[in-house]
Amino acid sequence: MSITSVSGTVPNTDRIEDLPEDGATTPSGIDTAELGAILLGRWPEARKAARERAKDPRFHSQYNQSFQQQRETTFQQLQLLRDAGPAKMGVPDYVGGTLNPGANLSAFEELVLADPSLQIKSGVQWGLFGSAVLNLGTKEHHLRWLPGILDLEIPGVFAMTEIGHGSDVSSIGTTATYLPETDEFEIHTPFKAAWKDYLGNAAVHGKAAAVFAQLIVKGVNHGVHCLYVPLRDDDGNFLPGVGGEDDGRKGGLNGIDNGRLHFDHVRVPRFNLLDRYGAVDENGEYSSPIPSPGRRFFTMIGTLVQGRVSLDGAAVIANQAALSIAVRYAEQRRQFTTDSDIREQTLLDYQRHQRRLIPRIAETYAMTFAHQQLLDKFHEVFSGEDDSDGNRQELETLAAAFKSLSTWSALDTLQEAREACGGAGFMAKNRLVELRADLDVYVTFEGDNTVLLQLVAKRLLNDYSAEFKNADIGVMARYVADRATEAGFNRSGLRKLTQAFSDSGDARKSVNALRDPDAQRALLTDRVQTMVGDVADELRAVARKSRTEQAEAFNRNQHKLIEAARSHGRLLQWEAFTAGLEKVQDPDTKRVLTWLRDLFGLSLIEADLHWYLAYGRLSMRRGRALEEYVNRLIARLRPYSLQLVDSFGLSPELLRAEIGGTVEAERQAEAEEYYRHLRASGDAPVKEAKPAKDPGAQTRGHHA
Amino acid sequence: MSITSVSGTVPNTDRIEDLPEDGATTPSGIDTAELGAILLGRWPEARKAARERAKDPRFHSQYNQSFQQQRETTFQQLQLLRDAGPAKMGVPDYVGGTLNPGANLSAFEELVLADPSLQIKSGVQWGLFGSAVLNLGTKEHHLRWLPGILDLEIPGVFAMTEIGHGSDVSSIGTTATYLPETDEFEIHTPFKAAWKDYLGNAAVHGKAAAVFAQLIVKGVNHGVHCLYVPLRDDDGNFLPGVGGEDDGRKGGLNGIDNGRLHFDHVRVPRFNLLDRYGAVDENGEYSSPIPSPGRRFFTMIGTLVQGRVSLDGAAVIANQAALSIAVRYAEQRRQFTTDSDIREQTLLDYQRHQRRLIPRIAETYAMTFAHQQLLDKFHEVFSGEDDSDGNRQELETLAAAFKSLSTWSALDTLQEAREACGGAGFMAKNRLVELRADLDVYVTFEGDNTVLLQLVAKRLLNDYSAEFKNADIGVMARYVADRATEAGFNRSGLRKLTQAFSDSGDARKSVNALRDPDAQRALLTDRVQTMVGDVADELRAVARKSRTEQAEAFNRNQHKLIEAARSHGRLLQWEAFTAGLEKVQDPDTKRVLTWLRDLFGLSLIEADLHWYLAYGRLSMRRGRALEEYVNRLIARLRPYSLQLVDSFGLSPELLRAEIGGTVEAERQAEAEEYYRHLRASGDAPVKEAKPAKDPGAQTRGHHA
Repeated sequence: MSITSVSGTVPNTDRIEDLPEDGATTPSGIDTAELGAILLGRWPEARKAARERAKDPRFHSQYNQSFQQQRETTFQQLQLLRDAGPAKMGVPDYVGGTLNPGANLSAFEELVLADPSLQIKSGVQWGLFGSAVLNLGTKEHHLRWLPGILDLEIPGVFAMTEIGHGSDVSSIGTTATYLPETDEFEIHTPFKAAWKDYLGNAAVHGKAAAVFAQLIVKGVNHGVHCLYVPLRDDDGNFLPGVGGEDDGRKGGLNGIDNGRLHFDHVRVPRFNLLDRYGAVDENGEYSSPIPSPGRRFFTMIGTLVQGRVSLDGAAVIANQAALSIAVRYAEQRRQFTTDSDIREQTLLDYQRHQRRLIPRIAETYAMTFAHQQLLDKFHEVFSGEDDSDGNRQELETLAAAFKSLSTWSALDTLQEAREACGGAGFMAKNRLVELRADLDVYVTFEGDNTVLLQLVAKRLLNDYSAEFKNADIGVMARYVADRATEAGFNRSGLRKLTQAFSDSGDARKSVNALRDPDAQRALLTDRVQTMVGDVADELRAVARKSRTEQAEAFNRNQHKLIEAARSHGRLLQWEAFTAGLEKVQDPDTKRVLTWLRDLFGLSLIEADLHWYLAYGRLSMRRGRALEEYVNRLIARLRPYSLQLVDSFGLSPELLRAEIGGTVEAERQAEAEEYYRHLRASGDAPVKEAKPAKDPGAQTRGHHA
Repeated sequence: MSITSVSGTVPNTDRIEDLPEDGATTPSGIDTAELGAILLGRWPEARKAARERAKDPRFHSQYNQSFQQQRETTFQQLQLLRDAGPAKMGVPDYVGGTLNPGANLSAFEELVLADPSLQIKSGVQWGLFGSAVLNLGTKEHHLRWLPGILDLEIPGVFAMTEIGHGSDVSSIGTTATYLPETDEFEIHTPFKAAWKDYLGNAAVHGKAAAVFAQLIVKGVNHGVHCLYVPLRDDDGNFLPGVGGEDDGRKGGLNGIDNGRLHFDHVRVPRFNLLDRYGAVDENGEYSSPIPSPGRRFFTMIGTLVQGRVSLDGAAVIANQAALSIAVRYAEQRRQFTTDSDIREQTLLDYQRHQRRLIPRIAETYAMTFAHQQLLDKFHEVFSGEDDSDGNRQELETLAAAFKSLSTWSALDTLQEAREACGGAGFMAKNRLVELRADLDVYVTFEGDNTVLLQLVAKRLLNDYSAEFKNADIGVMARYVADRATEAGFNRSGLRKLTQAFSDSGDARKSVNALRDPDAQRALLTDRVQTMVGDVADELRAVARKSRTEQAEAFNRNQHKLIEAARSHGRLLQWEAFTAGLEKVQDPDTKRVLTWLRDLFGLSLIEADLHWYLAYGRLSMRRGRALEEYVNRLIARLRPYSLQLVDSFGLSPELLRAEIGGTVEAERQAEAEEYYRHLRASGDAPVKEAKPAKDPGAQTRGHHA
């Protein structure tokens, strides 16, 4: 029988009319106080204090200026922020700090609610420039420079990226050559592609820079190291040998003065090498506590992971803000009558509108819990609670996975929210457009997202190979057996397949079975394992072939590998959401959040449904029923949408969106009252005849 | 045997190593001159002249200002543009024009290359305000007002949208009540939700407005009509009874002064009713050439389709520009060595980068050919070549489908291009970010895209029902038979299923079979037909139930309907691309373009692969092979990518992106020369040891 016949579709009568009721009554609502407290994470006081600060109008974005003016405004705001003192949490006691990395980043992330430019300007100064001195230098460097960095006497530049080498840092062209005759280093830019670029504080304010360069000692290149290099005198003029260009206007973050720098045989004292991981002594001898140049490089780079961690956190907050605005508006805004001639429907009653917003609420909860895990791990490593190699490596993998997923999600969610608010969404006074413009570059800086996912993929492949590194024979057989017996990956977070998922082919039974978290986990895990395994096989097949053939094989699988890494990150988010559920006490809240987690899981499966079908993980029948099932789960969550976004705890002073308040509801009420009065008074004009209600044909939207 | 075993994956040996070679040699290149001429469409001279104008720096965007300053700059540019005279093509000879609608829009669309704000400012003045007078008024109105509109003596506002009613125009609250005692109309805004909003020219420059209001004559509401209403005196002050607010800054298009307007019992002479479709005579009697109020409304609204047509055209050009910049950069930019220690790979050699850009080239070609069809049809209708009801209706459906797909694509493509250029993409000097910001609102205005797709869906449903409107019995049986015998939809462009597609299950054979255009067409058509049929069945099942149940059934299917409409638009784009191939004479060019069309078709199938699998249209085996097949098609097109974007004919003066030229290649050459010289001189430092090449772990991207 042909599949195109009616029976091949999902007939009306075979619909999943009811979601299973969990044997309980419908939750009356969410305990937003309890949930809100959980969402604040491990350092709630730091977050709350930062939110209070973010309400202060002196810290708010000032967009309606030339980019030159914006830079000055932001710099002044940074000085106010310095006086508020949050950066102290990031440094040790001997320079006046408290070294609480988790609290420090919690506060930093919330700054995005005041102004993304201010956030990133402070991130450049204290998070990048300051952290380079802190993490790559020693106590002597800290004592010499950190006080001036903290109090903004030394506005600084983190000079790593070059025009010609953004993602491939190990190939940068700038050199730092040791000169034994004067006991100095000479910093030099040998060609234009080696100019440092996109550097915050470089165009105007920077007085010094942490410059990454190839360290050359006695004719040997010891690889990339970092040096402290003065840039400008007190009048803001470049010092001899230093030059640069202004990057000019950008797509956002125009409060930051990005620019280029180059060096023409600029000399600095030997002391200026930040030498925690690689030093040159007074005899011109190089030494390092890490003998392997590769491992040394990765260790140095790894100390800078906090940028990724905090961008992940800022992206989570941006999602929360976007959905707080769009859901509030969608709850108030009415358009088109459907089942009543008089009262129009709210936007959030429309299925499509629900589809646009509610799965993104689920994703945002997953991101929030995932970020909490990431931040906890960051604190473990950088506070010294657990700074083992394994934990550092897991931190880097999590940061790469979560930062790429969340910063892309922020752009997508801000855009969807803006479109879901129609013309109102495009107005700056409703906040969404400028927030999106500022966050655009978050997907590129601190590691381009596409490259970061390749880092995740590499780790997955490495873990995979480790399983077989002693299996000289019978590798393929073992591989099949491993998959069948559900052995697998553990090391970089790939969870065990807890239960094989078998698809019975009965749509009703088996679609409902997808609400079993073990089934969701099994499906999500299986996809990652299978994809990584497939690529590993292909790469193993060329392992003894030429370098060109190996490179070609890798490139042929690049797309698949990146997709596998993305799916891995999604699985980790799902795991974090599932773990987060355990923190919830209130039973109604827990039930609603469990539905939300299910929606997240099923949305992930829906997004890759082609794969689950093509690889026989789901039957065609279930594949056809899934969309309908997701729709019903969304409809079930619809009544709780407002409470779910209220739990983010973002007050009107933090959202600062006109439509984020009650203005739309008031307008609707006034119009309804007008028509009610008109009907009651008998003055209403008779309609000539009722025009057909055709939402499509009637629309023009708004006009420019 | 379990599908999870190795044999269930696509084994290396079963790869489609070679695409079938068409029995010919590899094309040496594309005839960019011939192809370029084809891409210019039916009015090449108008486009070329407009491009010459767009090169003039006086018309270029001026972003680095407050929004208040930008508005003045754009208004001055509009005056310069008036002197260049392009608007004359849009009006009849008795007001000094040539009435060439196709040429007029061709020129208008190209303005986006100079400045989107200038484009939309001129679109508000001549395309919306002017067209309202032209299309809704009579010759007397034209003679009275069009000269002043053309020469900017009367900057005007198109006042349709209200705060409370954007998409549902028929429900607007503003009234125009006929006053027999003075033979006037009284324009009134009864409540705040009825304030006109988002109106270009309303905040500052507008001196008059085309105001849409419920026309009330002798206590009868004749529905929405349009009236010419003076707004401001010569000093720019509101006339008595008129008020407004400034919308302020926006996410883009800040050269336009959007604002709100409201009216407090403002009177205008009876003459000011634009009365082509509904008139009031001196005795206060209402009459209309269109008796049905519903049809009258849609006819009046339908005359304003040109906004959608021209936004589609502008979006196509934005895609062309974005890809011209990103592909040129990706051809020059090198990052990471793979198979050579010395020379790094270009970005466009990476599979993922190809995946990001090359399918979007294919989509842009499809959009270009689709827009040509749309513009031709627009010209037919508005020049009078064929202004039949059927042709008007097809024009509206095509405009709704293409405008929504292309404006979304423009945002997606501009964003992908900006990300593919990394940090450089975020710099304003590379054009992508500000172009995206300006085009953001194109997805909302002139019809919100989501609502427009529902218009398309409604048409599809109507056509579908028409098939059965006399079939009182056996509807279901006939429905099945219709699908089996490939009868179907024709009226609004749903093409006949020319050939049933049967999947043999042999991956190699059948994946290659997908290059058969009939197979692509069959699959794409089948999806639309099946989805529309499914929804029609569900709606039919509640046809005799309560209004509430009907509304619920519609809402339950809203998501599916919109997806069906989107797929329908995609099919029409594919058809247009396929028809466009016929215009190409040069055999090599034709072969490359045929691959590109295949890539477009297969990308569409890949995007909805879950559906083709779940509904048995493609086998699991083919589903698994498709991604690989698409990858190979992309790799085959890679050598022609630059020529494909060069054929768009966008010169550096039009792109105005620093990286759109050769600057990156020059930097790369200088760096290569430096290292070559260093090696030759023997001065190169020895590497301590080669750090492992790990693209992921080495990356930091750039920093703020």
